[in-house]
Amino acid sequence: MQTNNNSKSPRGNFFEDFKMGMVFHHATPRTVSDGDSSLYIALTGARQVLHSAQPVAHAMGYKSRTIDDLLAFHIALGKTVPDISINAIANLGYAQVQFIRPIYVGDTISAKSTVVGLKQNSDGKSGIVYVQCEAINQDHQVVISWVRWVMVRKSNLDSPAPETVIPELDKVVDAKNLHIPHNVEYNEFDTQMTGSAFLWDDYQVGELINHPSGMTIDESDHTLATKLYQNPARLHFDASKSTYGKRLVFGGHVMSVCRALSYEGLENALSIAAINGGAHSNPTFGSDTIYAHTEVLDKWEIPGRSDVGALRLRLIGVKDQPLRFLSEASTTIEGRRNYHPNVVLDLDYTVLMPRRA
Amino acid sequence: MQTNNNSKSPRGNFFEDFKMGMVFHHATPRTVSDGDSSLYIALTGARQVLHSAQPVAHAMGYKSRTIDDLLAFHIALGKTVPDISINAIANLGYAQVQFIRPIYVGDTISAKSTVVGLKQNSDGKSGIVYVQCEAINQDHQVVISWVRWVMVRKSNLDSPAPETVIPELDKVVDAKNLHIPHNVEYNEFDTQMTGSAFLWDDYQVGELINHPSGMTIDESDHTLATKLYQNPARLHFDASKSTYGKRLVFGGHVMSVCRALSYEGLENALSIAAINGGAHSNPTFGSDTIYAHTEVLDKWEIPGRSDVGALRLRLIGVKDQPLRFLSEASTTIEGRRNYHPNVVLDLDYTVLMPRRA
Amino acid sequence: MQTNNNSKSPRGNFFEDFKMGMVFHHATPRTVSDGDSSLYIALTGARQVLHSAQPVAHAMGYKSRTIDDLLAFHIALGKTVPDISINAIANLGYAQVQFIRPIYVGDTISAKSTVVGLKQNSDGKSGIVYVQCEAINQDHQVVISWVRWVMVRKSNLDSPAPETVIPELDKVVDAKNLHIPHNVEYNEFDTQMTGSAFLWDDYQVGELINHPSGMTIDESDHTLATKLYQNPARLHFDASKSTYGKRLVFGGHVMSVCRALSYEGLENALSIAAINGGAHSNPTFGSDTIYAHTEVLDKWEIPGRSDVGALRLRLIGVKDQPLRFLSEASTTIEGRRNYHPNVVLDLDYTVLMPRRA
Repeated sequence: MQTNNNSKSPRGNFFEDFKMGMVFHHATPRTVSDGDSSLYIALTGARQVLHSAQPVAHAMGYKSRTIDDLLAFHIALGKTVPDISINAIANLGYAQVQFIRPIYVGDTISAKSTVVGLKQNSDGKSGIVYVQCEAINQDHQVVISWVRWVMVRKSNLDSPAPETVIPELDKVVDAKNLHIPHNVEYNEFDTQMTGSAFLWDDYQVGELINHPSGMTIDESDHTLATKLYQNPARLHFDASKSTYGKRLVFGGHVMSVCRALSYEGLENALSIAAINGGAHSNPTFGSDTIYAHTEVLDKWEIPGRSDVGALRLRLIGVKDQPLRFLSEASTTIEGRRNYHPNVVLDLDYTVLMPRRA
Repeated sequence: MQTNNNSKSPRGNFFEDFKMGMVFHHATPRTVSDGDSSLYIALTGARQVLHSAQPVAHAMGYKSRTIDDLLAFHIALGKTVPDISINAIANLGYAQVQFIRPIYVGDTISAKSTVVGLKQNSDGKSGIVYVQCEAINQDHQVVISWVRWVMVRKSNLDSPAPETVIPELDKVVDAKNLHIPHNVEYNEFDTQMTGSAFLWDDYQVGELINHPSGMTIDESDHTLATKLYQNPARLHFDASKSTYGKRLVFGGHVMSVCRALSYEGLENALSIAAINGGAHSNPTFGSDTIYAHTEVLDKWEIPGRSDVGALRLRLIGVKDQPLRFLSEASTTIEGRRNYHPNVVLDLDYTVLMPRRA
Repeated sequence: MQTNNNSKSPRGNFFEDFKMGMVFHHATPRTVSDGDSSLYIALTGARQVLHSAQPVAHAMGYKSRTIDDLLAFHIALGKTVPDISINAIANLGYAQVQFIRPIYVGDTISAKSTVVGLKQNSDGKSGIVYVQCEAINQDHQVVISWVRWVMVRKSNLDSPAPETVIPELDKVVDAKNLHIPHNVEYNEFDTQMTGSAFLWDDYQVGELINHPSGMTIDESDHTLATKLYQNPARLHFDASKSTYGKRLVFGGHVMSVCRALSYEGLENALSIAAINGGAHSNPTFGSDTIYAHTEVLDKWEIPGRSDVGALRLRLIGVKDQPLRFLSEASTTIEGRRNYHPNVVLDLDYTVLMPRRA
């Protein structure tokens, strides 16, 4: 028989392989196309106008209709998986996700990660890796940046613990750090294009929106989506690789479904400027039906702009049935958030919305 | 806790909100792309040559290959749902559907509806709304027009009944009202491109065609399709919103599947010129297998054209197993059509087909 | 009632309809698009860089990123089904599959077959048809060529047996017959683009690779794929047309899934140059989970090129669980290969891989 050294099969990185300051230039750049946009619409039900309607985007000053912010984010994140999280036990969080430049059909997205934090767990079997990531276009411009932290298992349990470094992370991306696409004007925005007359001026801090639609996620839906994002994390495709004994729906896709469901009530939330943080508070599986609720957390003017404002929103995704009250979503006991077992997403993010002239 | 006024969540229109002559400019224009075409092929199995083969379409005089007629129709119809039928109890019918201009990759489709008829039901709880609709491209040209009527519930049962107006609708779109795309010539059409030598001349009124293939519609198929069409009617995505206790397949998608199945026997039915009427006679659900039968209802010359003719066809869609005889599809008892419980579609439509030189 | 002659419904060809030297120009040319590429990624999880990343392909000398070799092959093969194998009992094999020219977005693929062999079975009820096939682009250039043989039933059992002709087929496409795309240079290939530093030089004959990921194929996955390929063979879409009582997964799609799974370990196998032969050794059904193993069968220099080499690979696809040893895949008893019941694919193919400078 032949020798089976299996040296060609990639093992990915384990906790002890990560060192502070290491930089990963991730593989397989991806050219995004109209095909990706159409599939994203089919997979999520998205109706956001900047991604659907070329003339609307163009009239505002965009070069063309844009690739959905979350589609681009998922593709970029997917690129980091083989190097960063293929041996992860858990995806612990995101912070400081900034959408810096619009992404257009024909752009090619690459991803890069830098290790900015390490902390071995007390049991010595795993540790937390913090990475600062960037999605970069073909012109070497950063289009999205974010921090993510994951718990990764150790392969060699005898390897020594690294010095603990936990990066300081902003809880919220400030209004002054939000990027308004260059040359884009919201003055003439025609709300007939979105079907809702509610603009930034009309939303109030503390306001709640129960988005009226629900959506069942079937196995083919989430696996097609996750393959579209070229995210190879195995537990999404192979039940035997999932601790749940069934395929886990990629959390990013749940985020996309909730964002699409939130169209009804947030029609003029034209683009995502930042994700401040988020939790996939419970797992989602094939056949679960998802509902979405939004709470307006904050409302900001954008320095130097009277045509557009920002809303900081809490987007709650729930499975099986909508919440009766948003207060059901979580309770905080001794400083720790406890989630209702049906809550699958708690996302804190910031959108841009036209202001009334 | 915050107040939950829910004022941002759209409620849609109820029967009493519709007034004769009201005009709706529907939201979210949609740029159609190669991605939509590919997905439509994957979702339906369509093989119609004008939508698949650029050189064939171009040689006939089309600017490029066209977007499938039904794909464009479903997208345009989907745009009308939030304003017209989100509170509908039933979609009662279509008439006078005319395909006026070809739609190409890169075109942007908007939709507009005008209320042309109203009739409150005798129980006072709902009524029928008739709308005349138009799909419009980015150059403000009407590309498709149709009439549709739906039964919509009332929200305020005390609101007074409107004056009853029932529009006069043509049972059939006449040959003289069919639109042959400008500059398109059928003279040199090469039947090798479609695989069938049968042209307009070869079909006879009364002729029956049992299309030999069948197709199972899975849950992901129809929900992906309906999301691609950006049709947000809730009963297709959320079993709890369906009176059947399971997700209902969008009737337009059943139409598309039957049209695709009918390729085998109607290979040279190059485009749809009109839909004269149709009934979704029984519901279709995920896992149903669909078969299709065609009856040639009529055969028309097109005024001023010797290269192309029209066939008026009855397309019957059946679930579970093909009909043995088309006469099984329905019986007319006391002027009312009664359908075989497996018949899911009875469509009366008109196609264009090249004539023998 | 009307007469139902059903003469328009295509019957396809039966064994007695095929004559040596007959040529079929198959129907429905297909323009391939970015939409097809995106769907192929979503359906298979493919990450091959030449199909994903425009700048990488362009830098090597390709006009643009290319359509995946297997996607193009499946589309071309699908075109032959209505004429060649719609009445087939079994697809017996492929040989001499050569990928001759790259296929780009916007190209239109047609297919042509010539009967090169016939052999009636001893029971007189069916026979084997050998066809030499070509996929041709809009510039009348052959882009892929192959031989395929299928067992086709007879319709008229009284028709006489043809003279038996069995074509001589090469077991392997020789290195000198592999086509390196014109003007394409591998010298500057940057392995950061694929995530693996292993080049042609690093693979050894006899080496085994157990690709670490698995993928469940759901019903919608394979039926969407087969419809995308416009392959109308009925047993993939309608359980009642399958001898298994359930829909059979198209063997070509299993090939695509295994090729995509094999990315992890063969990242720099940039394109497929040839398929030497293959067997769909057991059926695959919806819900099966597929794993892939590769054995390096041979390793060739390409005449006149020091920048690129060829690897001849055996790709084994297995359902339910990976093989422990590749020797389990099949045993040869009295000259006949017997497959492990879980082995669904045994493919012998040749890839191009950059060489170390």
